[in-house]
Amino acid sequence: MINRYELIRPSMDKVEAMLKSSLRSKHRIINSAIKDLLESGGKRLRPALLVVCGNMGNKESPRLITMAAIVEILHMATLVHDDIIDDALFRRGVTTVQAKWGKDIAVFLGDYLFSTAFALITDNCPVENFGIITKTLQNICEGEISQYEDRFSTDVSRIRYLKRIMGKTAALFGLSCYLGAHESGCSGQQKSILFRYGISLGMAFQIADDVLDFIGDEQRTGKPKANDFTQGIYTLPVIHALRDKSLGPTLKEILQSFPLDKNDIKRVIAIVQASGGIEYSIDLINRYINRAVNTINTLPDNGYKAILIDLLDNIKPCR
Amino acid sequence: MINRYELIRPSMDKVEAMLKSSLRSKHRIINSAIKDLLESGGKRLRPALLVVCGNMGNKESPRLITMAAIVEILHMATLVHDDIIDDALFRRGVTTVQAKWGKDIAVFLGDYLFSTAFALITDNCPVENFGIITKTLQNICEGEISQYEDRFSTDVSRIRYLKRIMGKTAALFGLSCYLGAHESGCSGQQKSILFRYGISLGMAFQIADDVLDFIGDEQRTGKPKANDFTQGIYTLPVIHALRDKSLGPTLKEILQSFPLDKNDIKRVIAIVQASGGIEYSIDLINRYINRAVNTINTLPDNGYKAILIDLLDNIKPCR
Repeated sequence: MINRYELIRPSMDKVEAMLKSSLRSKHRIINSAIKDLLESGGKRLRPALLVVCGNMGNKESPRLITMAAIVEILHMATLVHDDIIDDALFRRGVTTVQAKWGKDIAVFLGDYLFSTAFALITDNCPVENFGIITKTLQNICEGEISQYEDRFSTDVSRIRYLKRIMGKTAALFGLSCYLGAHESGCSGQQKSILFRYGISLGMAFQIADDVLDFIGDEQRTGKPKANDFTQGIYTLPVIHALRDKSLGPTLKEILQSFPLDKNDIKRVIAIVQASGGIEYSIDLINRYINRAVNTINTLPDNGYKAILIDLLDNIKPCR
Repeated sequence: MINRYELIRPSMDKVEAMLKSSLRSKHRIINSAIKDLLESGGKRLRPALLVVCGNMGNKESPRLITMAAIVEILHMATLVHDDIIDDALFRRGVTTVQAKWGKDIAVFLGDYLFSTAFALITDNCPVENFGIITKTLQNICEGEISQYEDRFSTDVSRIRYLKRIMGKTAALFGLSCYLGAHESGCSGQQKSILFRYGISLGMAFQIADDVLDFIGDEQRTGKPKANDFTQGIYTLPVIHALRDKSLGPTLKEILQSFPLDKNDIKRVIAIVQASGGIEYSIDLINRYINRAVNTINTLPDNGYKAILIDLLDNIKPCR
């Protein structure tokens, strides 16, 4: 059986080299911090999507690798700034930029990554795609701001949560697919299909990530992370449990006793599980996955489409 | 006598309105924070430069107001992120975003301003100017990073200081002039002249601002701010004093006893003044001002050129 990922490996190696070369700086701290970031084992999901979709049409674009590097740099920029907000010490088991170098460097490193991405965009992207790129950046910011505004609010609706993760996460997945499709000469309809596939994948991906806060990532620690709700960020499983007539009021009471102690955290997780918040979320993940599969069912079957299906299989939270 | 500034007042009023409308957001916090920023009494120097230079050619551009708003939004974005680094509580006597709303909102507000500026740039700027805009953004980031890297270093050279403020401050002044000149149909030579004028003005402006750390702004408090060197940021007057054979070693010793107490601060200021560091800096300010005046001496005399001269007169530190 062939590992389908082999199809894009040569391109992904080039993306990695491009990331290294385009982020080289004359500043020692920047170079060290970027080296850490590049070696921290990101999955390179967004550039992979761009490369795969960049092979769905009939054109070979000389800009594909650069475009793939751009979406990863934008992602890295948002991660670095995110970690400041979260006061995160670790990401993917590696010390974050702000924990190692301080928030000052994290602020400017993020800005440096944004400005490098912007330079690459204006040098390489076709003008007709500037609109969707800048709109995506604004969506990401607005998603992050919504998340901050909603902290500690037990009244957040599911719709508001979905809108938030659409901006924060799914928009960049959609953009990656769209830009790849554009480069490979896909028709307007095909570009729209791959964009919507990316959005659905991104939604499923983020909900799955949010579920791990409660059930833990079995491949890693197996323990719930309890990162989000302890910081006042209420994701879908909590939002669902808060709507539960019998369990909701108790959950609300515990959440209001900020900061939560160990016992509170256990009780929150138990209530969320008892409310069916995990199953509800997994059900929604599956609906987004199915939607993504259906979205691309009219596209020709080939190795690249198979990767798009594989990617969907890989994002289910372990249960 | 006519106030020459009246010539550009109608345009500057439009810039103010454009800033308000283009930064309107659906997020309450963003709107409040932006309202604070807009009302905090910035001098709007960069958009004013753009508007003035936008009248130095023979073309009237419908995009001039938007372009002027863009340079101010970029400036605002860097200010908001700067204040995080400085842990600043006040700017221009007004509470900073990070002091009022927290560093989390400051990080995202800066990003939101950058992304809004990107969107306005890609929608409005001529493609041929993307290069100079993105290069300027990179220069600003690199200038800020250099400043951070050099903190507490008593070995920083004057050249390194000048390079730092070129990126941190002068680059955006130069860009503002260039973009305005481009819009008004100036020749390549005229654009280059106005760009260089902006760079010299920006250099003089930043050195003058750095001198105020030692002599105080008589129009405001009259007291030295002592903001920079107490945070390990050594600007031209300190760098000059550190090079003084008899005073340098003592100064170095005091600076190394971080954090500085009230007495240390007084001694640093006294040593810097005794070394002639203030006079040296003022001399350099005057050289940049003269260079700026000479740069534009071939341009036709008119009311707009007179404003460019006026602006230079206004940046001398009070002594």
